[in-house]
Amino acid sequence: MFKAIVSAETLKTTLDSVSVLVDECKVHLDEDGIEIRAVDPANVGMVDLRLSAEAFESYEADGGVIGVNLSRLEDIAGMADSGQLVELELDEETRKLHIQIDGLEYTLALIDPDSIRQEPDIPDLDLSAEVVIEGKDINRAVKASDMVSDHIALGVDASDELFYVDAEGDTDDVHLELTTEQLIDLQAGDARSLFSLDYLKDMNKAIPADAEVTLELGEEFPLKIKFPIAEGQGSVLFVLAPRIQSD
Amino acid sequence: MFKAIVSAETLKTTLDSVSVLVDECKVHLDEDGIEIRAVDPANVGMVDLRLSAEAFESYEADGGVIGVNLSRLEDIAGMADSGQLVELELDEETRKLHIQIDGLEYTLALIDPDSIRQEPDIPDLDLSAEVVIEGKDINRAVKASDMVSDHIALGVDASDELFYVDAEGDTDDVHLELTTEQLIDLQAGDARSLFSLDYLKDMNKAIPADAEVTLELGEEFPLKIKFPIAEGQGSVLFVLAPRIQSD
Amino acid sequence: MFKAIVSAETLKTTLDSVSVLVDECKVHLDEDGIEIRAVDPANVGMVDLRLSAEAFESYEADGGVIGVNLSRLEDIAGMADSGQLVELELDEETRKLHIQIDGLEYTLALIDPDSIRQEPDIPDLDLSAEVVIEGKDINRAVKASDMVSDHIALGVDASDELFYVDAEGDTDDVHLELTTEQLIDLQAGDARSLFSLDYLKDMNKAIPADAEVTLELGEEFPLKIKFPIAEGQGSVLFVLAPRIQSD
Repeated sequence: MFKAIVSAETLKTTLDSVSVLVDECKVHLDEDGIEIRAVDPANVGMVDLRLSAEAFESYEADGGVIGVNLSRLEDIAGMADSGQLVELELDEETRKLHIQIDGLEYTLALIDPDSIRQEPDIPDLDLSAEVVIEGKDINRAVKASDMVSDHIALGVDASDELFYVDAEGDTDDVHLELTTEQLIDLQAGDARSLFSLDYLKDMNKAIPADAEVTLELGEEFPLKIKFPIAEGQGSVLFVLAPRIQSD
Repeated sequence: MFKAIVSAETLKTTLDSVSVLVDECKVHLDEDGIEIRAVDPANVGMVDLRLSAEAFESYEADGGVIGVNLSRLEDIAGMADSGQLVELELDEETRKLHIQIDGLEYTLALIDPDSIRQEPDIPDLDLSAEVVIEGKDINRAVKASDMVSDHIALGVDASDELFYVDAEGDTDDVHLELTTEQLIDLQAGDARSLFSLDYLKDMNKAIPADAEVTLELGEEFPLKIKFPIAEGQGSVLFVLAPRIQSD
Repeated sequence: MFKAIVSAETLKTTLDSVSVLVDECKVHLDEDGIEIRAVDPANVGMVDLRLSAEAFESYEADGGVIGVNLSRLEDIAGMADSGQLVELELDEETRKLHIQIDGLEYTLALIDPDSIRQEPDIPDLDLSAEVVIEGKDINRAVKASDMVSDHIALGVDASDELFYVDAEGDTDDVHLELTTEQLIDLQAGDARSLFSLDYLKDMNKAIPADAEVTLELGEEFPLKIKFPIAEGQGSVLFVLAPRIQSD
C-alpha cells in the first residue's frame, strides 16, 4: 500500500539524483519515507537517497518495494509546473502506479524489482578529511578540469589547511585551491585520490549550486558526496570509487 | 492588385497556422481580406484561415490569387521585430511580392498557383458536441499523450458533462477529464473519435496558450478546431480526419 | 616578460574578434599594449586588433611574442563571470601561460610562434567612401542577404548620398538603403564592391550591436570595417577582399 502527495520540485530532485547513475531502480516505500539505493553497471558510482515522510504533503506506505523506469517518471513529473502537486498511488493488483497532476491521470507500468540490478551495500568508510563546500564551487572545479583531462584529483593538505583540485592534461593543467576561508568547513587530514571525471560530471548535475555539500576524502579511497534535498527532509549520498593513480 | 501593411506579429501568426500542414499554399487576396485553404499531402488535416482587411494597418486588393512558399515568407517576417510593420506589394507583371521592413526590401518570387495542390472543400459537418477550452489545456493533453502513444482519443460524456482525452500505450496510459467548471463552455452530446497525434501536435503548435479554442466533435467523425487570431479580426479552422478505432 | 590583469569581458571580446578568422594567432606583447594581426588561410579576410595597456587593470610587458590557441583560451575565459578579473602571467622558461580566475589556476601550453601562419601586411588603401553605421544595421543587412544569396554587394551612391546593400539570389533579392539620416556619418564617393557573405557573417559575429562601425569602401576594392572595443581603449580592423563582380 502506497499513497502520497508530493511537490513536483521534490519529485524531480529525487529522480534526477538517481537517474544520473542508473536508468531504473528499486524504491523502498517504508513507513517513515522512501529510500533508493543504486549502483551503476560498472560498480564505480553509488547513490543512497532518503526522503522522509515529512518531505511529502501526505504520505502513507507499509513497506513495499517497487521497480521504476526513471526517465519515464521524470517525463511525467516534467508535465507539472514547479508549484504543482503530484499524487501517487500504487495499484497493488495491477502493479501500476497511478499519477495525477491537476486532473491529468497517468498510469505507469512498474518494473519487476527482481529484474533490477541488486542494490549495493554502501561501504562504511573511515575517511581522513571532511570538506563542506558550496555546490557551485564543485561545479567550477569539474567544468575547468573537464577542459584539460578526463580525470581529476581531489585532495586535502592538512598542514596548509586547504582543499585542492588537480587536473593534468597532455599539455594544459588546472589547479584550484580553497582555503578554510573559502570553504564552509574543513576537518583536515591528509587525503588525495584520483577520480573519473565522467562520473563526477554526472553527479555534479544533481548537486544544486547553492547546496552545502559535504565531501569525505581519504588517501586512494572512495569519495563520499553528501547533500540535503527537499529543504533538509531528504538527503543524497554519492560514493565514487577512486581510479588507480597513474603517477 | 494587392498592397497592404500588417504588423509582423499578425503576419507570423498567419503563416505559422498554415505552415504546420503544408510547405506552400494559395492565398486569396479578396476585397475584404485574405483567405487560405490547404490540405496536407495525406488528406488528413485541413486548414481554413481568414484574415479580414481590418486586421491590417492598410489593405487594398481586388481578388487575385498568389502562390507562396511559406517557410521563405516566414524567414522574411522573422527579420521584423515584434512591434514593426511589414509592407507587402504585388508586382503583377513580374509576379513577385515586394516586402519592406523598415527600409529593408525583399523581393520574393511567387509560385504559380496552378502548381500548388488543389484547395480542399471544408466539410460542412453536424457534430454532436462542442467544447470551448483554453489553448494551454490542449497543449497539456497533447504533450502527455505523446509520452505513451501515437494516437489520442477525444470525447465528450454527455451524462457526466465532461470532456476527456485518452491515450493508450503499450504499457502506460494517459487520461484527462475536464468538467464544465474547468472548461469555458460545453454543449454536451456523446462523442468520441481517435486521432493521429502527429497531426494534432502540429496543429497544437499554432494554437496560442491563451486562446479560447472551440472543438467540435462527433462519434468517429472529424474534429474541428477553431480559434481567433489577430485580436479577433481573423480566424483559423483546422479539420482533422479520424483514425479507425482499434478497439 | 608579461603579466596582466584584464576583465573577463574585455578578454572575451578580444579573442572573439580574432577567432572568427583563425584558430591560432601570434600575440605581440608590447610595452604599451597588445597587437594581433592575422589572415585566414584563403587570404580573403584579415584582422588587426590593438588593445592598449589602459584597457587592462594592470599591465606589464616588454615586447615578446606568444602563439595562442584561440578556442582553448576562449574556453578558459568562459569560466569567468562577466564581472570577474582574469590574471595572465607568462612563464618564459616553460613557455606556458598561467591564468588565474578567482583562485582557479589554468596552465596553458603556448604554440611556437614560428609554426603559425605569417602575419599579413595590412594594406594602406585610399578608399573613396566612408560610412559610419550602427552594428545592428550591419547585422540586419547580413542576415537578410544570407536568406537569398552567398554574396553581397555594398555600395555608396554619391549623388543620392546613400549607402546600400544588394544581394541577388536565383529567385529572390534583398535591397537595403540607408540615407545620411539613418547613418551616423557618410563621406560619399561612388563605391561598389561584391563580397563573400560567409566572411562577412563571421566578421559580423564580432561586431557589437551598439558599436559605431566605420566602413571604408571603393570600386571593386577591399572593404575596411573598423570598430572600437574595451570602451575605446582598443580597436578592431577587419579587411575583406572583394569577389570579382559577376555582372
